Amino acid sequence: MQHPSPTRYDKIIALLSNRQPDLTVFMDEVHKPHNLAAIVRTSDAIGIGHVHAVFPPDVKFSGHHTASGSKRWVTTHKHPDLKTGITEVKKQGMQVLAAHFSDKAVDFRSIDYTKPTCILVGSELVGVSDEAADLADEHVIIPMVGMVQSLNVSVATALILYEAQRQRAEANMYGELKVPQEEVDYILFNALHP
Amino acid sequence: MQHPSPTRYDKIIALLSNRQPDLTVFMDEVHKPHNLAAIVRTSDAIGIGHVHAVFPPDVKFSGHHTASGSKRWVTTHKHPDLKTGITEVKKQGMQVLAAHFSDKAVDFRSIDYTKPTCILVGSELVGVSDEAADLADEHVIIPMVGMVQSLNVSVATALILYEAQRQRAEANMYGELKVPQEEVDYILFNALHP
Ligand SMILES: C[S@@+](CC[C@H](N)C(=O)[O-])C[C@H]1O[C@@H](n2cnc3c(N)ncnc32)[C@H](O)[C@@H]1O
Ligand SMILES: C[S@@+](CC[C@H](N)C(=O)[O-])C[C@H]1O[C@@H](n2cnc3c(N)ncnc32)[C@H](O)[C@@H]1O
Repeated sequence: MQHPSPTRYDKIIALLSNRQPDLTVFMDEVHKPHNLAAIVRTSDAIGIGHVHAVFPPDVKFSGHHTASGSKRWVTTHKHPDLKTGITEVKKQGMQVLAAHFSDKAVDFRSIDYTKPTCILVGSELVGVSDEAADLADEHVIIPMVGMVQSLNVSVATALILYEAQRQRAEANMYGELKVPQEEVDYILFNALHP
Repeated sequence: MQHPSPTRYDKIIALLSNRQPDLTVFMDEVHKPHNLAAIVRTSDAIGIGHVHAVFPPDVKFSGHHTASGSKRWVTTHKHPDLKTGITEVKKQGMQVLAAHFSDKAVDFRSIDYTKPTCILVGSELVGVSDEAADLADEHVIIPMVGMVQSLNVSVATALILYEAQRQRAEANMYGELKVPQEEVDYILFNALHP
Protein backbone atom coordinates (compact mmCIF):
# COMPACT_ATOMS: atom_id res chain seq x y z
CA MET A 1 0.00 0.00 0.00
CA GLN A 2 1.30 3.42 -0.96
CA HIS A 3 0.99 6.32 1.42
CA PRO A 4 1.22 9.84 0.08
CA SER A 5 4.45 11.27 1.45
CA PRO A 6 3.62 13.74 4.21
CA THR A 7 4.11 17.35 3.32
CA ARG A 8 6.89 19.27 4.96
CA TYR A 9 4.25 21.12 6.95
CA ASP A 10 2.77 17.87 8.30
CA LYS A 11 6.22 16.61 9.15
CA ILE A 12 7.06 19.65 11.21
CA ILE A 13 3.71 19.63 12.99
CA ALA A 14 4.32 15.97 13.85
CA LEU A 15 7.80 16.86 15.10
CA LEU A 16 6.48 19.67 17.28
CA SER A 17 3.68 17.58 18.73
CA ASN A 18 6.25 15.09 20.00
CA ARG A 19 8.47 17.74 21.55
CA GLN A 20 9.03 17.57 25.31
CA PRO A 21 9.67 21.15 26.47
CA ASP A 22 10.15 19.93 30.04
CA LEU A 23 13.05 17.61 29.24
CA THR A 24 16.57 18.81 28.54
CA VAL A 25 20.29 18.09 28.72
CA PHE A 26 23.02 20.21 30.29
CA MET A 27 26.58 19.61 29.10
CA ASP A 28 29.27 20.57 31.60
CA GLU A 29 32.32 21.24 29.40
CA VAL A 30 31.73 18.34 27.03
CA HIS A 31 33.99 19.41 24.18
CA LYS A 32 34.71 16.70 21.62
CA PRO A 33 32.76 17.60 18.48
CA HIS A 34 31.61 14.02 17.84
CA ASN A 35 30.21 13.78 21.37
CA LEU A 36 28.44 17.13 21.18
CA ALA A 37 27.00 16.13 17.83
CA ALA A 38 25.83 12.73 19.03
CA ILE A 39 24.14 14.25 22.10
CA VAL A 40 22.28 16.83 20.02
CA ARG A 41 21.27 14.12 17.53
CA THR A 42 19.90 11.82 20.27
CA SER A 43 18.10 14.78 21.84
CA ASP A 44 16.32 15.49 18.57
CA ALA A 45 15.41 11.80 18.27
CA ILE A 46 13.53 11.72 21.56
CA GLY A 47 11.85 15.10 21.18
CA ILE A 48 14.18 17.57 22.87
CA GLY A 49 14.32 20.95 21.19
CA HIS A 50 16.61 22.82 23.60
CA VAL A 51 19.84 21.77 25.26
CA HIS A 52 22.23 23.70 27.49
CA ALA A 53 25.98 23.89 27.72
CA VAL A 54 28.96 25.55 29.27
CA PHE A 55 32.12 25.21 27.21
CA PRO A 56 35.76 25.33 28.21
CA PRO A 57 37.22 28.76 27.28
CA ASP A 58 39.03 27.40 24.22
CA VAL A 59 36.11 25.55 22.60
CA LYS A 60 34.08 27.02 19.79
CA PHE A 61 30.89 25.00 19.28
CA SER A 62 29.93 24.60 15.66
CA GLY A 63 27.87 21.45 16.03
CA HIS A 64 28.28 20.45 12.43
CA HIS A 65 30.20 17.24 13.04
CA THR A 66 27.77 14.41 12.07
CA ALA A 67 24.88 15.91 13.95
CA SER A 68 23.01 14.84 10.79
CA GLY A 69 21.20 18.10 10.45
CA SER A 70 19.85 17.96 13.99
CA LYS A 71 21.60 21.23 14.85
CA ARG A 72 18.99 22.99 12.73
CA TRP A 73 16.22 21.61 14.93
CA VAL A 74 17.82 21.59 18.36
CA THR A 75 18.93 24.87 19.91
CA THR A 76 22.04 24.79 22.10
CA HIS A 77 21.90 27.46 24.81
CA LYS A 78 25.42 28.45 25.71
CA HIS A 79 25.78 29.80 29.25
CA PRO A 80 28.64 31.99 30.54
CA ASP A 81 29.02 29.77 33.59
CA LEU A 82 27.52 26.76 35.28
CA LYS A 83 25.71 28.57 38.06
CA THR A 84 23.91 30.89 35.64
CA GLY A 85 22.91 28.00 33.41
CA ILE A 86 21.68 25.67 36.13
CA THR A 87 19.79 28.50 37.81
CA GLU A 88 17.97 29.19 34.55
CA VAL A 89 17.04 25.53 34.14
CA LYS A 90 15.84 25.29 37.73
CA LYS A 91 13.70 28.39 37.23
CA GLN A 92 11.88 26.39 34.54
CA GLY A 93 10.91 23.97 37.32
CA MET A 94 13.23 21.14 36.29
CA GLN A 95 14.79 18.57 38.59
CA VAL A 96 18.51 18.51 37.79
CA LEU A 97 20.02 15.03 37.68
CA ALA A 98 23.79 14.77 37.41
CA ALA A 99 25.05 11.61 35.70
CA HIS A 100 27.82 11.28 38.22
CA PHE A 101 29.69 8.63 40.18
CA SER A 102 29.21 9.54 43.84
CA ASP A 103 28.17 7.98 47.10
CA LYS A 104 24.69 9.38 46.78
CA ALA A 105 24.17 8.23 43.16
CA VAL A 106 21.12 6.06 42.46
CA ASP A 107 20.46 3.71 39.53
CA PHE A 108 19.35 5.79 36.52
CA ARG A 109 16.32 3.55 36.02
CA SER A 110 14.93 4.33 39.48
CA ILE A 111 14.15 7.96 38.60
CA ASP A 112 10.77 9.36 37.52
CA TYR A 113 11.52 11.09 34.22
CA THR A 114 7.93 12.12 33.58
CA LYS A 115 8.68 15.06 35.90
CA PRO A 116 10.32 18.12 34.34
CA THR A 117 13.92 16.95 34.09
CA CYS A 118 17.36 18.21 33.14
CA ILE A 119 20.12 15.63 32.72
CA LEU A 120 23.54 17.06 33.49
CA VAL A 121 26.58 15.29 32.04
CA GLY A 122 30.27 15.89 32.51
CA SER A 123 33.31 16.36 30.35
CA GLU A 124 35.24 13.57 28.65
CA LEU A 125 38.25 13.82 30.94
CA VAL A 126 37.21 15.08 34.35
CA GLY A 127 33.50 14.32 34.42
CA VAL A 128 30.95 16.40 36.29
CA SER A 129 32.63 19.25 38.20
CA ASP A 130 32.26 19.53 41.97
CA GLU A 131 30.25 22.69 41.48
CA ALA A 132 27.82 20.94 39.13
CA ALA A 133 27.53 17.94 41.44
CA ASP A 134 26.58 20.28 44.28
CA LEU A 135 24.01 22.16 42.23
CA ALA A 136 22.27 18.94 41.11
CA ASP A 137 19.22 17.62 42.95
CA GLU A 138 20.26 13.99 42.53
CA HIS A 139 23.06 11.89 41.08
CA VAL A 140 22.37 8.96 38.79
CA ILE A 141 24.57 6.15 37.65
CA ILE A 142 24.38 3.61 34.85
CA PRO A 143 25.43 0.17 36.11
CA MET A 144 28.68 -1.26 34.72
CA VAL A 145 30.21 -4.69 35.32
CA GLY A 146 33.39 -4.48 33.26
CA MET A 147 36.88 -3.13 33.70
CA VAL A 148 36.34 0.38 32.34
CA GLN A 149 35.58 3.20 34.76
CA SER A 150 33.01 5.01 32.66
CA LEU A 151 31.05 5.05 29.44
CA ASN A 152 31.50 7.49 26.59
CA VAL A 153 29.56 10.64 27.50
CA SER A 154 27.27 10.57 24.45
CA VAL A 155 26.48 6.92 25.18
CA ALA A 156 25.70 7.67 28.85
CA THR A 157 23.50 10.62 27.88
CA ALA A 158 21.59 8.53 25.33
CA LEU A 159 20.93 5.72 27.82
CA ILE A 160 19.37 8.13 30.30
CA LEU A 161 17.44 10.02 27.61
CA TYR A 162 15.96 6.81 26.21
CA GLU A 163 14.91 5.71 29.69
CA ALA A 164 13.09 9.06 29.88
CA GLN A 165 11.61 8.40 26.41
CA ARG A 166 10.40 4.95 27.52
CA GLN A 167 8.70 6.32 30.60
CA ARG A 168 7.18 9.25 28.76
CA ALA A 169 5.91 7.06 25.92
CA GLU A 170 4.30 4.76 28.50
CA ALA A 171 2.72 7.80 30.18
CA ASN A 172 1.34 8.99 26.80
CA MET A 173 3.40 12.16 26.88
CA TYR A 174 4.12 12.11 23.14
CA GLY A 175 1.78 13.31 20.42
CA GLU A 176 0.33 16.35 22.16
CA LEU A 177 1.48 19.84 21.27
CA LYS A 178 3.22 21.34 24.30
CA VAL A 179 5.57 23.78 22.55
CA PRO A 180 4.57 27.44 23.07
CA GLN A 181 2.63 28.81 20.08
CA GLU A 182 5.21 31.52 19.52
CA GLU A 183 7.92 28.88 19.05
CA VAL A 184 5.66 26.84 16.75
CA ASP A 185 5.15 29.90 14.56
CA TYR A 186 8.84 30.69 14.54
CA ILE A 187 9.86 27.14 13.55
CA LEU A 188 7.18 26.87 10.88
CA PHE A 189 8.11 30.22 9.42
CA ASN A 190 11.79 29.35 9.21
CA ALA A 191 11.17 25.88 7.86
CA LEU A 192 8.64 26.82 5.22
CA HIS A 193 10.13 30.11 4.04
CA PRO A 194 13.82 29.35 3.94
CA MET B 1 32.77 2.48 56.74
CA GLN B 2 36.01 1.49 54.99
CA HIS B 3 36.17 -1.56 52.77
CA PRO B 4 39.51 -3.15 52.00
CA SER B 5 40.13 -2.54 48.32
CA PRO B 6 39.59 -5.74 46.38
CA THR B 7 42.71 -7.43 45.10
CA ARG B 8 43.35 -7.52 41.40
CA TYR B 9 42.55 -11.23 41.47
CA ASP B 10 39.13 -10.61 43.08
CA LYS B 11 38.43 -7.88 40.59
CA ILE B 12 39.08 -10.11 37.62
CA ILE B 13 37.05 -12.97 39.06
CA ALA B 14 34.17 -10.54 39.58
CA LEU B 15 34.57 -9.35 36.00
CA LEU B 16 34.54 -12.89 34.65
CA SER B 17 31.53 -13.93 36.69
CA ASN B 18 29.52 -11.15 35.08
CA ARG B 19 30.57 -12.01 31.56
CA GLN B 20 27.83 -13.03 29.12
CA PRO B 21 29.45 -15.39 26.59
CA ASP B 22 26.14 -15.69 24.72
CA LEU B 23 25.82 -11.98 23.96
CA THR B 24 27.84 -10.19 21.30
CA VAL B 25 28.01 -7.38 18.78
CA PHE B 26 28.81 -7.59 15.07
CA MET B 27 30.03 -4.41 13.39
CA ASP B 28 29.38 -4.28 9.64
CA GLU B 29 32.04 -1.86 8.38
CA VAL B 30 31.78 0.57 11.28
CA HIS B 31 35.02 2.46 10.82
CA LYS B 32 35.29 5.70 12.77
CA PRO B 33 37.75 5.09 15.60
CA HIS B 34 35.64 6.91 18.20
CA ASN B 35 32.63 4.78 17.34
CA LEU B 36 34.58 1.52 17.42
CA ALA B 37 36.08 2.55 20.74
CA ALA B 38 32.73 3.52 22.27
CA ILE B 39 31.14 0.23 21.17
CA VAL B 40 33.96 -1.84 22.68
CA ARG B 41 33.79 0.24 25.87
CA THR B 42 30.02 -0.24 26.25
CA SER B 43 30.43 -3.94 25.53
CA ASP B 44 32.90 -4.28 28.39
CA ALA B 45 30.54 -2.35 30.66
CA ILE B 46 27.68 -4.82 30.22
CA GLY B 47 29.83 -7.97 30.33
CA ILE B 48 30.67 -8.71 26.71
CA GLY B 49 34.14 -10.15 26.20
CA HIS B 50 34.08 -10.82 22.46
CA VAL B 51 32.84 -8.69 19.60
CA HIS B 52 32.96 -9.27 15.86
CA ALA B 53 33.71 -7.04 12.90
CA VAL B 54 34.28 -6.79 9.22
CA PHE B 55 36.20 -3.70 8.19
CA PRO B 56 36.31 -1.80 4.92
CA PRO B 57 39.52 -2.72 3.04
CA ASP B 58 41.26 0.53 3.97
CA VAL B 59 40.62 0.49 7.72
CA LYS B 60 43.21 -0.67 10.20
CA PHE B 61 41.59 -1.24 13.58
CA SER B 62 43.76 -0.17 16.46
CA GLY B 63 41.03 0.37 18.99
CA HIS B 64 43.12 2.69 21.11
CA HIS B 65 40.98 5.78 20.64
CA THR B 66 39.34 6.41 24.07
CA ALA B 67 38.30 2.82 24.55
CA SER B 68 39.55 3.57 28.09
CA GLY B 69 41.55 0.39 28.31
CA SER B 70 38.59 -1.79 27.37
CA LYS B 71 40.45 -3.10 24.35
CA ARG B 72 42.62 -5.12 26.73
CA TRP B 73 39.52 -6.88 28.06
CA VAL B 74 37.36 -7.18 24.99
CA THR B 75 38.59 -9.18 22.01
CA THR B 76 37.58 -7.98 18.56
CA HIS B 77 37.32 -10.86 16.09
CA LYS B 78 38.03 -9.56 12.64
CA HIS B 79 36.39 -11.61 9.87
CA PRO B 80 37.47 -11.68 6.22
CA ASP B 81 33.87 -11.19 5.09
CA LEU B 82 30.36 -10.88 6.43
CA LYS B 83 29.14 -14.36 5.48
CA THR B 84 32.05 -16.05 7.24
CA GLY B 85 31.59 -13.96 10.35
CA ILE B 86 27.83 -14.30 10.64
CA THR B 87 28.05 -18.03 9.98
CA GLU B 88 30.51 -18.39 12.85
CA VAL B 89 28.23 -16.45 15.20
CA LYS B 90 25.21 -18.50 14.16
CA LYS B 91 27.14 -21.73 14.78
CA GLN B 92 27.42 -20.54 18.39
CA GLY B 93 23.61 -20.68 18.51
CA MET B 94 23.01 -16.94 18.51
CA GLN B 95 19.98 -15.14 17.09
CA VAL B 96 21.29 -12.38 14.84
CA LEU B 97 19.42 -9.09 15.17
CA ALA B 98 20.24 -6.37 12.68
CA ALA B 99 19.70 -2.82 13.96
CA HIS B 100 18.21 -1.80 10.65
CA PHE B 101 15.43 0.37 9.26
CA SER B 102 13.27 -1.99 7.20
CA ASP B 103 9.63 -2.94 6.74
CA LYS B 104 10.07 -5.97 8.92
CA ALA B 105 11.86 -4.15 11.77
CA VAL B 106 10.32 -4.44 15.25
CA ASP B 107 10.80 -2.19 18.28
CA PHE B 108 14.10 -3.07 19.95
CA ARG B 109 12.41 -3.40 23.32
CA SER B 110 10.08 -6.17 22.09
CA ILE B 111 12.94 -8.68 21.74
CA ASP B 112 13.92 -11.38 24.27
CA TYR B 113 17.63 -10.71 24.86
CA THR B 114 18.02 -13.46 27.44
CA LYS B 115 18.38 -15.78 24.43
CA PRO B 116 21.86 -16.08 22.91
CA THR B 117 22.02 -12.89 20.87
CA CYS B 118 24.26 -11.10 18.40
CA ILE B 119 23.45 -7.47 17.64
CA LEU B 120 24.53 -6.46 14.16
CA VAL B 121 25.06 -2.77 13.44
CA GLY B 122 25.88 -0.95 10.23
CA SER B 123 28.39 1.59 9.05
CA GLU B 124 28.23 5.31 9.68
CA LEU B 125 27.35 6.21 6.12
CA VAL B 126 25.47 3.37 4.47
CA GLY B 127 24.15 1.44 7.44
CA VAL B 128 23.59 -2.33 7.44
CA SER B 129 24.42 -3.83 4.03
CA ASP B 130 21.76 -5.75 2.09
CA GLU B 131 23.76 -8.91 2.59
CA ALA B 132 23.84 -8.43 6.36
CA ALA B 133 20.12 -7.58 6.47
CA ASP B 134 19.39 -10.83 4.62
CA LEU B 135 21.57 -12.92 6.92
CA ALA B 136 19.94 -11.52 10.08
CA ASP B 137 17.10 -13.37 11.80
CA GLU B 138 15.26 -10.18 12.71
CA HIS B 139 15.53 -6.41 12.30
CA VAL B 140 15.15 -4.06 15.23
CA ILE B 141 14.60 -0.34 15.36
CA ILE B 142 14.96 2.28 18.07
CA PRO B 143 12.01 4.68 17.95
CA MET B 144 12.78 8.27 16.93
CA VAL B 145 10.42 11.25 16.81
CA GLY B 146 12.73 14.01 15.56
CA MET B 147 14.00 15.23 12.24
CA VAL B 148 17.17 13.14 12.01
CA GLN B 149 17.08 9.86 10.10
CA SER B 150 19.26 7.82 12.43
CA LEU B 151 21.24 7.81 15.66
CA ASN B 152 24.98 7.65 15.96
CA VAL B 153 25.98 3.98 15.63
CA SER B 154 27.68 3.73 19.02
CA VAL B 155 24.61 5.29 20.64
CA ALA B 156 22.25 2.86 18.86
CA THR B 157 24.42 -0.11 19.84
CA ALA B 158 24.53 1.00 23.48
CA LEU B 159 20.76 1.42 23.68
CA ILE B 160 20.18 -2.14 22.49
CA LEU B 161 22.98 -3.55 24.67
CA TYR B 162 21.61 -1.88 27.79
CA GLU B 163 18.14 -3.22 27.05
CA ALA B 164 19.81 -6.66 26.95
CA GLN B 165 21.59 -5.84 30.24
CA ARG B 166 18.30 -4.81 31.85
CA GLN B 167 16.57 -8.02 30.83
CA ARG B 168 19.51 -10.20 31.82
CA ALA B 169 19.89 -8.49 35.19
CA GLU B 170 16.18 -9.04 35.82
CA ALA B 171 16.60 -12.71 34.87
CA ASN B 172 19.56 -13.04 37.28
CA MET B 173 21.98 -13.79 34.49
CA TYR B 174 24.84 -11.82 36.07
CA GLY B 175 27.13 -13.07 38.82
CA GLU B 176 27.52 -16.66 37.71
CA LEU B 177 30.68 -17.81 35.98
CA LYS B 178 29.82 -18.87 32.43
CA VAL B 179 33.16 -18.22 30.73
CA PRO B 180 34.95 -21.47 29.73
CA GLN B 181 37.64 -22.44 32.29
CA GLU B 182 40.35 -22.30 29.66
CA GLU B 183 39.52 -18.65 28.98
CA VAL B 184 39.41 -17.88 32.72
CA ASP B 185 42.90 -19.35 33.12
CA TYR B 186 44.20 -17.44 30.12
CA ILE B 187 42.82 -14.09 31.31
CA LEU B 188 44.03 -14.60 34.88
CA PHE B 189 47.48 -15.61 33.71
CA ASN B 190 47.83 -12.56 31.48
CA ALA B 191 46.42 -10.16 34.05
CA LEU B 192 48.43 -11.37 37.01
CA HIS B 193 51.75 -12.10 35.29
CA PRO B 194 52.12 -9.16 32.96
C1 LIG C 1 33.89 9.80 30.26
S1 LIG C 1 32.87 10.22 31.59
C2 LIG C 1 33.96 11.08 32.71
C3 LIG C 1 34.89 10.20 33.39
C4 LIG C 1 35.63 10.89 34.51
N1 LIG C 1 36.95 10.34 34.55
C5 LIG C 1 34.92 10.68 35.85
O1 LIG C 1 35.48 9.98 36.69
O2 LIG C 1 33.84 11.21 36.07
C6 LIG C 1 31.96 11.59 30.98
C7 LIG C 1 30.58 11.74 31.55
O3 LIG C 1 29.74 10.68 31.08
C8 LIG C 1 28.77 10.37 32.05
N2 LIG C 1 28.91 8.94 32.39
C9 LIG C 1 29.78 8.05 31.86
N3 LIG C 1 29.57 6.83 32.36
C10 LIG C 1 28.55 6.93 33.24
C11 LIG C 1 27.85 6.00 34.08
N4 LIG C 1 28.16 4.70 34.11
N5 LIG C 1 26.85 6.48 34.86
C12 LIG C 1 26.51 7.79 34.82
N6 LIG C 1 27.12 8.70 34.05
C13 LIG C 1 28.13 8.28 33.26
C14 LIG C 1 29.01 11.29 33.24
O4 LIG C 1 28.20 12.43 33.14
C15 LIG C 1 30.47 11.67 33.06
O5 LIG C 1 30.78 12.90 33.66
C1 LIG D 1 24.30 6.25 11.25
S1 LIG D 1 23.40 4.79 11.11
C2 LIG D 1 23.39 4.49 9.35
C3 LIG D 1 22.51 5.41 8.64
C4 LIG D 1 22.30 5.00 7.20
N1 LIG D 1 22.20 6.21 6.42
C5 LIG D 1 21.04 4.15 7.05
O1 LIG D 1 20.09 4.62 6.44
O2 LIG D 1 21.02 3.00 7.50
C6 LIG D 1 24.57 3.55 11.57
C7 LIG D 1 23.94 2.35 12.20
O3 LIG D 1 23.43 2.67 13.47
C8 LIG D 1 22.32 1.85 13.78
N2 LIG D 1 21.17 2.73 14.06
C9 LIG D 1 21.16 4.09 14.08
N3 LIG D 1 19.96 4.55 14.43
C10 LIG D 1 19.17 3.47 14.64
C11 LIG D 1 17.82 3.29 15.05
N4 LIG D 1 17.02 4.31 15.31
N5 LIG D 1 17.35 2.02 15.17
C12 LIG D 1 18.15 0.97 14.92
N6 LIG D 1 19.43 1.08 14.54
C13 LIG D 1 19.94 2.32 14.41
C14 LIG D 1 22.10 0.96 12.58
O4 LIG D 1 22.75 -0.28 12.78
C15 LIG D 1 22.77 1.74 11.47
O5 LIG D 1 23.19 0.89 10.43
